Amino acid sequence: MTVQIDLNADLGEGFGRWPLGDDDALLGIVTSANVACGFHAGDPSVLRRVCDRAAENGVAIGAQVGYRDLAGFGRRFIDVAPDELTQDVIYQIGALEAFARVAGTRVRYVKPHGALYHALFHHEEQAAAVVAAVHAYDPTLPVLGLPGSLWLRRAGEAGLATVKEAFVDRNYTPEGTLVPRGESDATLTDPEAIARRCVGIATTGRLEAVDGTEVTTGADSLCVHGDTDGAVQVARAVRAALDEGGITVRAFTHEGPPR
Amino acid sequence: MTVQIDLNADLGEGFGRWPLGDDDALLGIVTSANVACGFHAGDPSVLRRVCDRAAENGVAIGAQVGYRDLAGFGRRFIDVAPDELTQDVIYQIGALEAFARVAGTRVRYVKPHGALYHALFHHEEQAAAVVAAVHAYDPTLPVLGLPGSLWLRRAGEAGLATVKEAFVDRNYTPEGTLVPRGESDATLTDPEAIARRCVGIATTGRLEAVDGTEVTTGADSLCVHGDTDGAVQVARAVRAALDEGGITVRAFTHEGPPR
Amino acid sequence: MTVQIDLNADLGEGFGRWPLGDDDALLGIVTSANVACGFHAGDPSVLRRVCDRAAENGVAIGAQVGYRDLAGFGRRFIDVAPDELTQDVIYQIGALEAFARVAGTRVRYVKPHGALYHALFHHEEQAAAVVAAVHAYDPTLPVLGLPGSLWLRRAGEAGLATVKEAFVDRNYTPEGTLVPRGESDATLTDPEAIARRCVGIATTGRLEAVDGTEVTTGADSLCVHGDTDGAVQVARAVRAALDEGGITVRAFTHEGPPR
Amino acid sequence: MTVQIDLNADLGEGFGRWPLGDDDALLGIVTSANVACGFHAGDPSVLRRVCDRAAENGVAIGAQVGYRDLAGFGRRFIDVAPDELTQDVIYQIGALEAFARVAGTRVRYVKPHGALYHALFHHEEQAAAVVAAVHAYDPTLPVLGLPGSLWLRRAGEAGLATVKEAFVDRNYTPEGTLVPRGESDATLTDPEAIARRCVGIATTGRLEAVDGTEVTTGADSLCVHGDTDGAVQVARAVRAALDEGGITVRAFTHEGPPR
Repeated sequence: MTVQIDLNADLGEGFGRWPLGDDDALLGIVTSANVACGFHAGDPSVLRRVCDRAAENGVAIGAQVGYRDLAGFGRRFIDVAPDELTQDVIYQIGALEAFARVAGTRVRYVKPHGALYHALFHHEEQAAAVVAAVHAYDPTLPVLGLPGSLWLRRAGEAGLATVKEAFVDRNYTPEGTLVPRGESDATLTDPEAIARRCVGIATTGRLEAVDGTEVTTGADSLCVHGDTDGAVQVARAVRAALDEGGITVRAFTHEGPPR
Repeated sequence: MTVQIDLNADLGEGFGRWPLGDDDALLGIVTSANVACGFHAGDPSVLRRVCDRAAENGVAIGAQVGYRDLAGFGRRFIDVAPDELTQDVIYQIGALEAFARVAGTRVRYVKPHGALYHALFHHEEQAAAVVAAVHAYDPTLPVLGLPGSLWLRRAGEAGLATVKEAFVDRNYTPEGTLVPRGESDATLTDPEAIARRCVGIATTGRLEAVDGTEVTTGADSLCVHGDTDGAVQVARAVRAALDEGGITVRAFTHEGPPR
Repeated sequence: MTVQIDLNADLGEGFGRWPLGDDDALLGIVTSANVACGFHAGDPSVLRRVCDRAAENGVAIGAQVGYRDLAGFGRRFIDVAPDELTQDVIYQIGALEAFARVAGTRVRYVKPHGALYHALFHHEEQAAAVVAAVHAYDPTLPVLGLPGSLWLRRAGEAGLATVKEAFVDRNYTPEGTLVPRGESDATLTDPEAIARRCVGIATTGRLEAVDGTEVTTGADSLCVHGDTDGAVQVARAVRAALDEGGITVRAFTHEGPPR
Repeated sequence: MTVQIDLNADLGEGFGRWPLGDDDALLGIVTSANVACGFHAGDPSVLRRVCDRAAENGVAIGAQVGYRDLAGFGRRFIDVAPDELTQDVIYQIGALEAFARVAGTRVRYVKPHGALYHALFHHEEQAAAVVAAVHAYDPTLPVLGLPGSLWLRRAGEAGLATVKEAFVDRNYTPEGTLVPRGESDATLTDPEAIARRCVGIATTGRLEAVDGTEVTTGADSLCVHGDTDGAVQVARAVRAALDEGGITVRAFTHEGPPR
């Protein structure tokens, strides 16, 4: 049996005059691109370029949907009415889909961004609203998220395929949740240590929590960050370690039937 | 032989708290809806509602693409770089397409809005950019515009199907161009006179210019305005006169093969 | 002793192509204008016009500051970081001040709008942030709000002058809070009944709660709504009743020293 | 007699998550800061920070006003109606003024940005509109621009103080205009050569044109760019050369009476 895993990163987060992250470098490393759709980041020219490059590199394109908040980069919770949130998400998926199609491919999955990602852990109405959006747009579209989140649970109940991810540079509690960002040991920074942990996740489905105990992730995808300093270096180290470890790095949507 | 013509109007032009026009009433009258896509007007909730209602009423959905300028309602020329304009247009079509699909239908055509509509009469780079957008997105998608415009000419040269429209409440010069808005006799306001003229256009392909001479329009579609006072009254009078005149009012895309 | 009271309304809430409310009519009735500053509504041309008319009519100009959310009209809570909220509020006051000065007057007070108004009842960090903004901008600037709100309490503690308002068309609980909008008896609609109640508030400082008991408001200002149907009719009835009742209707800032 | 000159740069051009340029470094070098006001770049938090730092460093704050076009960074001509442009400019100056006042200082001058800067060379209506804005806001406020521009001419005719600038890294034609950006020798890149030229401009009021002839600039201010690679290095070299040359580098508004 071949061990395989997906590597995803947030891309397409520039806007107009303001670049962000190194999309081109990451598209040579990851297998799934969470592409901003213009509501929290990304403009049409950024989307076009990222989709074209992703298609050239065989990287799966996912819609990274967010709150309508360019000034806040989608990092501030907004108490959007559920029905409006559903339409906001459909709009974003459709806009990105246009560029995916022009590039000869399709949107392959949906992942929430920033404050929406966090809200969907527990916010019933907003989780239902985003699930409704994906379901209305295309019920065969998988969704990506954190194990244990309301988002994945409600999506699964609605019949959507769910894909679990682990954050490569975040520490976990013994309960399998992320150590909150405010705490001193919230993040890992050493690329080699991160890479080693990724090989462990891919081969065993488990990782070492912050207290040294082992927790099970069941992750199908590893999330590397796109907009931090050293993001490319970390991603490259992870990819190299996975490749050297004989792990097949491929998009989780790779084997699925063509949509 | 049955005489037939299309009736189109600009719809979906509200934004958030601000409604505009009477979408529901017009969707009971017209056969093609030029739906704003969010760059100059329209938000996702507006688009959802208009697409749902259009589908229920059998009204064809067209993407009315515009400059990215909510503050100016797309009525101000913007010197957008052609490549950026191409991506802006693809983005808008894709966003609308998502709602059309959710409603069980498709985007059936593309029509520029406001200052972009005017720019495409003569602006080579922008005309080419919008044509490139439609062609890249879907080369089978027809475009709607004014006879004699660079927009329709370049679209035709690129192999796109072109559909000519006439403005039901605008006066024409003997050369077949619109009397500029600044002039006193630029517009017609009497619903009955407008309606009579529409029957003439549909049955003869000709209309009486401002000097009394006859000009040929070859119009396949009649454009009624959506956001002016009395818009619904004019549209209703036109539709009634066409129906009474035995003219089949149907979307120009009606007979085409399913896309 | 002369009985006097202020009459305030939300104005300047149009944006670009989208008008909202009847600013001109209300500026002939109210004595204080809560002018939107461009973040949730209002564009520079709207602000210019409202400030010019307010100055002509001797109406005091207040900055109605809101969340940066045109799509949501400022009606959705946004979890803005307090420091960013402070700067957002300073920005809005300054922008409006420019038009007030061009019109020969000044911004006379600050009132939060929509979801921010509601958040400031209880949200410690955001209340502190908006108070900090007003204090940094001009510590002599009064703030307008609901009695019992954290907003007025924190503002008072910071040394800002606080002005209490009552909503003319909302029912009150026996505890003096508003009957929530969801409930059937949340609002009053009869202009004459509203007007009578306003005379009572002005002369006695008290009003009849929803259960028939009397509650004390201590209101210095009465808020009429600007964007609802019948807003002008209600405002006119209230003003007429106050005038007939011998009550001096004047801005609460009227007697203060020039800032 | 002391030779003196001003050194200005565009600052405050970040937006939300997207930084741009090194504001802090430049505020230690230049004497006048052209601060973006939120329409083409800059958000309230950026404005607050830049104004605070400018005040601490004794750097004069100027309002760099632009078209309302975040997506285009104000670099695309927009055919705004003159009256709307006037209000857009007043709004921007007022917003920035709020932060200048909070920092204990004032807006000291106005300079157009990007496509607006270019349009004001020749566009009569827009030049008049921006002049009208400054005049309405504060007729004692100087304006900064290129010698020979319609902007400075119309401003001077309206009684505004005008300040001429030279671009330190742009080549000039023998007629004293800038070599267009498209041409190969449009820009200078060697910091030392640029610095030497600046000393020449400051001491003689003249510079060597692209063909070797001398042209008179009469510049009171030298503009260094803020958002290009090496911007800080160039600015530092220019400042050092001016200081070593015994030239007093100070804001052109320094000696004026307090506004």
